[in-house]
Amino acid sequence: MKYLQDRILTDGRVEGTDILKVDSFLNHQIDVELMNEIGKEFNERFKEHNITKILTIEASGIAIATIAAQYFKVPVVFAKKTESRNLDKDTYESSVYSFTKDKTYKIRVSKKYINDKDNVLILDDFLANGKAANGLIDIVNQSKANVCGIGIVIEKGFQDGGKKLRDKGINVQSLAIIDRFEDGNVKFSAC
Amino acid sequence: MKYLQDRILTDGRVEGTDILKVDSFLNHQIDVELMNEIGKEFNERFKEHNITKILTIEASGIAIATIAAQYFKVPVVFAKKTESRNLDKDTYESSVYSFTKDKTYKIRVSKKYINDKDNVLILDDFLANGKAANGLIDIVNQSKANVCGIGIVIEKGFQDGGKKLRDKGINVQSLAIIDRFEDGNVKFSAC
Repeated sequence: MKYLQDRILTDGRVEGTDILKVDSFLNHQIDVELMNEIGKEFNERFKEHNITKILTIEASGIAIATIAAQYFKVPVVFAKKTESRNLDKDTYESSVYSFTKDKTYKIRVSKKYINDKDNVLILDDFLANGKAANGLIDIVNQSKANVCGIGIVIEKGFQDGGKKLRDKGINVQSLAIIDRFEDGNVKFSAC
Repeated sequence: MKYLQDRILTDGRVEGTDILKVDSFLNHQIDVELMNEIGKEFNERFKEHNITKILTIEASGIAIATIAAQYFKVPVVFAKKTESRNLDKDTYESSVYSFTKDKTYKIRVSKKYINDKDNVLILDDFLANGKAANGLIDIVNQSKANVCGIGIVIEKGFQDGGKKLRDKGINVQSLAIIDRFEDGNVKFSAC
């Protein structure tokens, strides 16, 4: 998705060997026009799959999933990372290790909001090692719903999360795939 | 906002003396059509205020703020509750006590994304004691931007957060104000 790649080149910042900061438009400040382009593109790629629900994980995924859901005309469910009095006791749970935060946390989804008749599209901002995606897949599998695909805004192609998911036969669609960082610049995969 | 009140009466659940669960459409599963009605209504109420930025707090506020931002055509910034390698070092910070989670946490916004020329609209899902709203106001004040108003989806009118904010002269617009819970039912304020 050229529009997104151009934005990453203009406003993304590479830090160290493996961090791409896109907090000016994707995961701290949010450019809503860009979100709409992203939402339309996910709809193009998954519109034939009879999606009934979009699943994401708090916090950065929520903006992407909610805007995209307008095109799919389905509800969003976001997995919660924290305990809260507002969450039901009866939940699907999984564990996710976060490299950026260097800790393992539980994610939870109330059993009310995904069921065995759902066709679920998982959306998230980043895919690197695939830990969050696998936690969400685990939750969908517990609910006996179908994982119809995974839509990712930015995939770090030099980490193995995407490859492992595709090797399992999952339809992973990433709108920008980073091949490598070179001298502080982003180099995208050719296709 | 009658459409929202009707939805709360249909799908909200009162628990105990002070909890209203709206996780089926607002803060766990998200009804995107309802979000759009909410976004339009906030725009109606604040469109004369030359808003340049919408500020909210992760996680539940993000969906509301992002959908509303489509009508205002401005960026969203969401305050972060957790430490992350993805957040700049140079941030505005405040502390917020959460009754639902029974703990105090820091909220942070990168100094890059709010400045003294911004007219900020603060949006959130709930207003009860006003702790989160005051934390966000504190951050806007540190940035020397203007707090042009606060838009709330559901205000618990029987707690004093809204009154205290309005007493300070802040334009607080709540789309549904709950007067009380009576025998497990929601009673809205008359106006």
